[in-house]
Amino acid sequence: MSTLKGNWFTEVYNEGGIALGLEIEEQLLSIQTNYQKLDVYRTKRFGNLLTLDGLVMLTQRDNFIYHEMIAHPVLYTHPAPKNIVIIGGGDCGTLQQVLKHSSVRDVVQCDIDEAVTQAATQYFPELCTSNSDPRASIIFKDGIHYISSLDSKSIDVIIIDSSDPVGPGEGLFTAELYTHCRRVLRENGLLVQQSESPLLHVDLLCSIRYQMMKAPFPFLQTLNFPQCTYPSGWWTVTIAGNDIPEFRIEKESIETRYYNSSIHQASQALPEFLKHEFMGRGIA
Amino acid sequence: MSTLKGNWFTEVYNEGGIALGLEIEEQLLSIQTNYQKLDVYRTKRFGNLLTLDGLVMLTQRDNFIYHEMIAHPVLYTHPAPKNIVIIGGGDCGTLQQVLKHSSVRDVVQCDIDEAVTQAATQYFPELCTSNSDPRASIIFKDGIHYISSLDSKSIDVIIIDSSDPVGPGEGLFTAELYTHCRRVLRENGLLVQQSESPLLHVDLLCSIRYQMMKAPFPFLQTLNFPQCTYPSGWWTVTIAGNDIPEFRIEKESIETRYYNSSIHQASQALPEFLKHEFMGRGIA
Repeated sequence: MSTLKGNWFTEVYNEGGIALGLEIEEQLLSIQTNYQKLDVYRTKRFGNLLTLDGLVMLTQRDNFIYHEMIAHPVLYTHPAPKNIVIIGGGDCGTLQQVLKHSSVRDVVQCDIDEAVTQAATQYFPELCTSNSDPRASIIFKDGIHYISSLDSKSIDVIIIDSSDPVGPGEGLFTAELYTHCRRVLRENGLLVQQSESPLLHVDLLCSIRYQMMKAPFPFLQTLNFPQCTYPSGWWTVTIAGNDIPEFRIEKESIETRYYNSSIHQASQALPEFLKHEFMGRGIA
Repeated sequence: MSTLKGNWFTEVYNEGGIALGLEIEEQLLSIQTNYQKLDVYRTKRFGNLLTLDGLVMLTQRDNFIYHEMIAHPVLYTHPAPKNIVIIGGGDCGTLQQVLKHSSVRDVVQCDIDEAVTQAATQYFPELCTSNSDPRASIIFKDGIHYISSLDSKSIDVIIIDSSDPVGPGEGLFTAELYTHCRRVLRENGLLVQQSESPLLHVDLLCSIRYQMMKAPFPFLQTLNFPQCTYPSGWWTVTIAGNDIPEFRIEKESIETRYYNSSIHQASQALPEFLKHEFMGRGIA
């Protein structure tokens, strides 16, 4: 990487032998929060970039794909989602997508780190335009503790919009959390979690599916989609529930830039190698 | 990128403000061919890597996605592909996939640069296992000249498996070539070309579709799929023809690692933003 001229942010994924660089015009923020190191840069071609502990969380240019794909498929799969909880998601981008659904009555966004939301408000204001929606509550607490405090069968959809399973996000990939989610969800409730790269993190993706099965959530569905600035440029979310019905093709049209019903269907198609992994490990 | 320790190959896409790094264990080859600079590296986690003029062409780890997606969708869309021409494709990976189809009677692989095929034979032998198939001919000529020399209505499928539209690949993205292809293809013949990133190269992708329409090929179909080591990790191929029927769901099962009929269907789903681009430019 010594040939790079100019100023670059680099995320090195050492275990994967791969690195992503984004050209930087200016660093806008660099703070140590109570939980993690938070940096914001203005890039040359990807708008503002937010990193936590040196890992890309989002850029203004391509976050729409991730935020739409963690929110809309699960909400269009649930027959009538009213009460929603987002664990993590401090940048408010998922909250904004969730609030596009007219069936939704209330959404609680629970991120442990208030500094992330403060940075989003300042540097990603376009993601925070729905923060004052009367249906939205933004709280700053430990996600597992919050979920465990909720009444049984009180929530329709839980969205775990976490950072990677290192640092503050670590406890958000465990059977313990999924068991709490199971109790809190209504009978037809659904859980969705970002589940990393299908090329680079197959073991982790399979572990998430295995832990979800143990919760027990008998039905699982992993969706895949491009995400340019995450390692390998290819990402997944995994939906878990007692049953995963066909998604509703809506008459109401919400405004999106990536998601549509064909994309929703397409994201369910699994490559041969991943089908074999799931079957070989008994988590298909 | 100054924080990288160890030895890294870096592809910097300056116009896009983005760079990809792959950790290297050893450089295996570095030559100037008659047409371009060719390097082969042994990477730490992606197997061998071949670059042309400093751009990633393929790695052993992830080339299967690209090679399967440029070959199988077009061949399963044509009702009975017998005579095939590959322009470019010197690494022989596309040829190998094409020869998996039992309907195929002969395939000509025409790359301008013999040095690429020599390097593939030595450093990517797993891609060259079908080179001695009696149905295969491997020639080294200018692709446009070769296509223009072919009899009219003699070919079923033309696959333009080119490098980027700079250097020796430049002439392979022009209306002139598409017009030659039009003449050479049988009535139900199909052309397919790699058509770059839907995120980073929208103008180029649209230009390819526009030039194909002018050939004239009245029907176009752009397929998208992940390709980790190409810029943005997200790539396309575009199929052109007089008509593009539904693909055949085959009883014969060919061995693949990425492609299957669900993936084929999925690759046709276009994100909202890309549908809008195509509609806005009159190339939908």
